[in-house]
Amino acid sequence: MKPSKSNAEKLSIFALGGVGEIGKNMYVVQYGSEIIVIDSGLKFPEEDMLGIDVVIPDITYLLENKEKVRGIFLTHGHEDHIGGLPYVLKHLNVPVYGTKLTLGLVESKLKEAGMLGETKRILVHADSVLKFSKVKVSFFKTNHSIPDSVGICIDTPEGVVVHTGDFKFDQTPVNNDFADIHRMSEIGKRGVLALLSDSTNAERPGYTGSERSVGASLKEVFRNAEQRVIVATFASNVHRLQQVIDAAAYTNRKLAIVGRSMVNVITIAAELGYLHIPEGMLVELDEVNRLPSHRVAILSTGSQGEPMSALTRMARSTHKKVEILPGDTVVIAANPIPGNEKYVGRTVDELFRLGANVIYGYNGGGGVHVSGHGSQEELKLMLNLMKPKYFIPIHGEYRMLRQHGLLAESVGIDRENIFICDLGEVVEIHNGVARKAGKIPVGNVLIDGLGVGDVGNIVLRDRKLLSQDGILVVVVTLSKQDGKIVSGPDIISRGFVYVRESEGLLDEANRIVSGTLQKLTGENISEWASLKTHVKEALGRFLYEQTRRRPMILPIIMEV
Amino acid sequence: MKPSKSNAEKLSIFALGGVGEIGKNMYVVQYGSEIIVIDSGLKFPEEDMLGIDVVIPDITYLLENKEKVRGIFLTHGHEDHIGGLPYVLKHLNVPVYGTKLTLGLVESKLKEAGMLGETKRILVHADSVLKFSKVKVSFFKTNHSIPDSVGICIDTPEGVVVHTGDFKFDQTPVNNDFADIHRMSEIGKRGVLALLSDSTNAERPGYTGSERSVGASLKEVFRNAEQRVIVATFASNVHRLQQVIDAAAYTNRKLAIVGRSMVNVITIAAELGYLHIPEGMLVELDEVNRLPSHRVAILSTGSQGEPMSALTRMARSTHKKVEILPGDTVVIAANPIPGNEKYVGRTVDELFRLGANVIYGYNGGGGVHVSGHGSQEELKLMLNLMKPKYFIPIHGEYRMLRQHGLLAESVGIDRENIFICDLGEVVEIHNGVARKAGKIPVGNVLIDGLGVGDVGNIVLRDRKLLSQDGILVVVVTLSKQDGKIVSGPDIISRGFVYVRESEGLLDEANRIVSGTLQKLTGENISEWASLKTHVKEALGRFLYEQTRRRPMILPIIMEV
Repeated sequence: MKPSKSNAEKLSIFALGGVGEIGKNMYVVQYGSEIIVIDSGLKFPEEDMLGIDVVIPDITYLLENKEKVRGIFLTHGHEDHIGGLPYVLKHLNVPVYGTKLTLGLVESKLKEAGMLGETKRILVHADSVLKFSKVKVSFFKTNHSIPDSVGICIDTPEGVVVHTGDFKFDQTPVNNDFADIHRMSEIGKRGVLALLSDSTNAERPGYTGSERSVGASLKEVFRNAEQRVIVATFASNVHRLQQVIDAAAYTNRKLAIVGRSMVNVITIAAELGYLHIPEGMLVELDEVNRLPSHRVAILSTGSQGEPMSALTRMARSTHKKVEILPGDTVVIAANPIPGNEKYVGRTVDELFRLGANVIYGYNGGGGVHVSGHGSQEELKLMLNLMKPKYFIPIHGEYRMLRQHGLLAESVGIDRENIFICDLGEVVEIHNGVARKAGKIPVGNVLIDGLGVGDVGNIVLRDRKLLSQDGILVVVVTLSKQDGKIVSGPDIISRGFVYVRESEGLLDEANRIVSGTLQKLTGENISEWASLKTHVKEALGRFLYEQTRRRPMILPIIMEV
Repeated sequence: MKPSKSNAEKLSIFALGGVGEIGKNMYVVQYGSEIIVIDSGLKFPEEDMLGIDVVIPDITYLLENKEKVRGIFLTHGHEDHIGGLPYVLKHLNVPVYGTKLTLGLVESKLKEAGMLGETKRILVHADSVLKFSKVKVSFFKTNHSIPDSVGICIDTPEGVVVHTGDFKFDQTPVNNDFADIHRMSEIGKRGVLALLSDSTNAERPGYTGSERSVGASLKEVFRNAEQRVIVATFASNVHRLQQVIDAAAYTNRKLAIVGRSMVNVITIAAELGYLHIPEGMLVELDEVNRLPSHRVAILSTGSQGEPMSALTRMARSTHKKVEILPGDTVVIAANPIPGNEKYVGRTVDELFRLGANVIYGYNGGGGVHVSGHGSQEELKLMLNLMKPKYFIPIHGEYRMLRQHGLLAESVGIDRENIFICDLGEVVEIHNGVARKAGKIPVGNVLIDGLGVGDVGNIVLRDRKLLSQDGILVVVVTLSKQDGKIVSGPDIISRGFVYVRESEGLLDEANRIVSGTLQKLTGENISEWASLKTHVKEALGRFLYEQTRRRPMILPIIMEV
C-alpha cells in the first residue's frame, strides 16, 4: 500500500445493517462528501417481533445526507441484500448499480411496487469502473449461491476499501463460472486499507463443498427414483436450479415449476441467459398427471417449510394441483435457516406419512446441499489475498464476527487493527490511522402490512402480553349523577380461558369488579384513571391467585 | 422365542405420548386386565402453543381402566419421562417404580407438589423382578445421559415385550457404569416378541461419542483457562457434572453452584452417592469474588439459553452475584435442543461481548458435548441383540421413527413386522400375530399456570390472532328508546399501532363505526348480534385496506 499523504477529509465506514445480525445488509463507505452505499437488504423478523412481516434498516443518516449519496451498489440479488430497496428508494431516490442478474431481480421487485419508472438503474460488469469526484468504485467476481455476485472495491484518497459481498471459493463452479481470484490478488498486491468480509460461516472449520457436488448427488437421486422426483430449493440459487434441470434432462423427465418465486426467478434467469432449459422440457403443472410418473420432475419452493409455500401445501395435502403419492421422491436441497428447523422437520414428517421417499439436506444428508458461504479456510484465503491493514468482519451475528476476527489474527493481522462493530459504530480512518469514532443513529424499522415503522416496542410488548395470557375487557357504565353502576360490569375475554368451562371464575371476577367499584364510588373517588387502576389491580390479583396467569386487563368505564 | 400357545387374552401396546413427537413419553403395555405404564413425561410447548407452560398426555384411557393399572414404571429421571407425574398421579394414584436416582428426583418433584405422602414409591434395582397376575416386569441397565437408566422387560403369556428406555452404548462410561449388554443378550436369546426402541438419533450415522471424551476436553479447557471457568450444562447429566468436578479438582479450583435445578440435582445426586465431591471444594457464590480467579469454577444452568436461567442472566449482566469478566472462560457443554438455537446463539453473543472466551458445544465445537442417545450403529446393535419378531420404533418425530424402521429392515426385520404408530394407535398381538387394532383417545393436555386443560384450540387461536395484529375494542352506548348513540363510539387498541402516530387512522375508524351504527339503527335493525357483525365487518375492511392488517375487533354495545 502506498503511504497516504495527509488528507483533509476523513474516511468513515459503518453498517446500517448486517453486523450483529443475519440480514438487512447495508454498509456505508463515506469519504468526505461522497457516500457509497453497499446493498439494501431486509431481514425476517426475530421471534419476539410478533406480527411483523419484514425488517429494514433505519436510514435516517442517509436521508440527512441525501445529497452526498452517490448510489446504492449491489453485491448480488438475495433478499437480505436487495429486499429493502422498495422501501429505501421511496425516501432516498438514488441510482442503483448492479450486475445483470441482480438488476433483473431488482427490476421485478420495483415493478411490483410500481417504482420501476422513477428508479435510475445502472448495469455494471465485473470490470466496470465508476468514477466520482474523489472516489472510484470497481468490482470483482465471486462465487456465491446466486450467479453474478461481486465484491466491491472503493478507491479513496485515504486508501482502498474492499467489501467482499457474500462469497465462497468454488474450485469447480457450475458453468465454469469462476471467481476472479487473479483480480483479487491484484487488488491485494496494490494494497488494501480496509477489508470488510462475509462472516456467515466463520464458525465452520475447513472448506465449503462445491456446488457441482450437489449436481452429482441430484443425478444419483434422479436415476434411482422409480417415480416422480420433486425438488425444493432456494428459488434464487440459479446454479442449483440448472443442476436440477440437468438431472431431469439426464433421466429424460419433463419438468414442472411450482411456487410464485420459483416461477419468477426461472423466468428472469432464463430470459437473461443464466439458465439453460432444453426445448420442450417445461410442462404445465396440469399436464403432470397425464405423464408416466418416471418421466416427471417438479421444481418447487418451500425448502424452509414456510407455511404457505408449495411444498408445505403438498405435504399437508392442501395443494390444488400436486398430490404426493406413495413412491414419489422428494428432495429438500437446502439446510434449514436457523429458526426454521421445526418447520422443515414437520414438512419431512408429513411427506413420509404420505409414503414419499424424502431426502433432506438436513444434517448434510444425501449431499443435496452445500452452503453459499466460505468456511474458515476460505475466509483465511480471502484475508491472505487482500492483506488488509484494517479488518472489519461483517455479515454475521456477533459470535461469527468475533470468530472471523480470530481467524484474521491467525493469519497475522494485528489484533488492534481488527474492528468488530455494532450497527452504526463508525470506523474512521484518517492519515492511515483507524479508530472507532462514535455511533450514528441506527435501528430496526419494522414493517407490518402497509405500515412502515408504526409498530414499535410498546405495540410489540402488548402483542407479547396478549399472546401469553390473552385479554379481559371489563365494561361498566356509571351514572354521571351519583357514580352508581347503571349497566355492567360485563367481562369479555379472548385468549384467556375456555369461557364455558370457567363460568365460575368469570362470575367471581365480575363480583370482584362490582365490589371494587361500589366501594370506590361510595368513597367518592370519581377520578376515572384511579377507578381503572383499582379495577385492574383487584382483578389482576384475583386472576393470578386463581390461575397463575396475567392476562391484559382493559377496564372501560362509560358515564351516562 | 417359544411358540406361544393359544391365549384367551390379547396383548396391546400403544403410546399416550412419545411417538410423532419429542417429549411427554408414556407407553402402555396391556395384557388382558393388567396394564403396565412406562414413564410419565412432559413436553415443552410447540411454538404455536402460545402462553402454555408444559404439555402432558391425555390419560383418559388409563382413568377409564384405573383398576387395571399395576403401576407406572420409570426408565430414568429426565423431565420428558417423569415430569408429568405430579399431574397424572393426582388423578391416577398408582404405585411408581423406579431406580434409586430416578426415585430421588421424583420424590423431590412430588414433595414440591405436596404429594409425597399419598404416593406409593417402590425402589427397584436392575435385577428386580415384579410379578403380577400374568405379567412379570424386569429391568436391564443402559447408558444414557443420566445415571441409573434402565430398559424394561415385560413378560406376558403372549411373549416378551422390551422397552429400551433412552439409551446409547458407551464403551468407556464414566465411573465404569456399564450397560448390561450380557443381560440384553440373554433377553434376546430367550426371545423377544416386540421391541420398543429409542429413535432420537435414528437420523444420525455412526456411533455416538463416549461421555468420557467430554471429560478429557473439559480438563483441557480448565487447564488452558487463565481465569475463571464457568460451565453450563444439563443439571440432570450427573456424569457430566462429575467430570466438571473432576476437572475443577485437577486444576485446583473451588466450585460454586448456581441455578435452582443445578443445586437441586447436585444435592440429590450427592446424597444418593451418584456424585463425588471432594471435601472443601464447594464454595458459596458470595465467596467466589474473594478467591483468585484461576482458583474458581462455576457450574451453572442455562445451557439452552433459557431466558430466566443463571447463565442467561450472567450474559445479560443481570445476575445478582456473578458478573462475567474479560478473560473468563465460559463452556456451554450442551447442544441446543431444536428450537433453542437462537436463544443459545444470543447467549454466546452476549458472553463474547463481555469479553469472555466462549466454548460452545454448538456444531460439535470443543468436544464438550456428546449426545445421550445412540446413533444408527448402536440402534442396529440393540436390534441385533434383541432380535425381536415385531419392532415398534418409539421416542421420536415421525421421520425418526421412519428412519429407525429402515434401520430395522436393514438388519433383517420383515417390513410388515415393523409398526410405525401414531399416538394411541394400538398394536394388538394375539396368538403370535400382530396387527394394528384401532386407536384409543389421546391428545395434548395443555398446562397454563394452574390451569390444566382449560386452554384449547379456540383460546390458542385467539392468542395467535392477538399476537399478530393486536386488538381493537369498540365501545358504544345506545339508547334503549330510540337506538341513538348516547356515548361513544370509543376505540381502544392494544398491540395494533402506535396510537400517537396513527391518530388520523383511528379518527377515521371512529367515523366509520358511527356511520355504520347510524345507518343500521336508522333502518331499525336493533338486534345486537347483527349490529356487532356489521361494525366488525365495516371496521375490519377499512383497517385491512389502510394497513393490510387484521386485528381482532371486539365490538361492545351497551344499552341504557
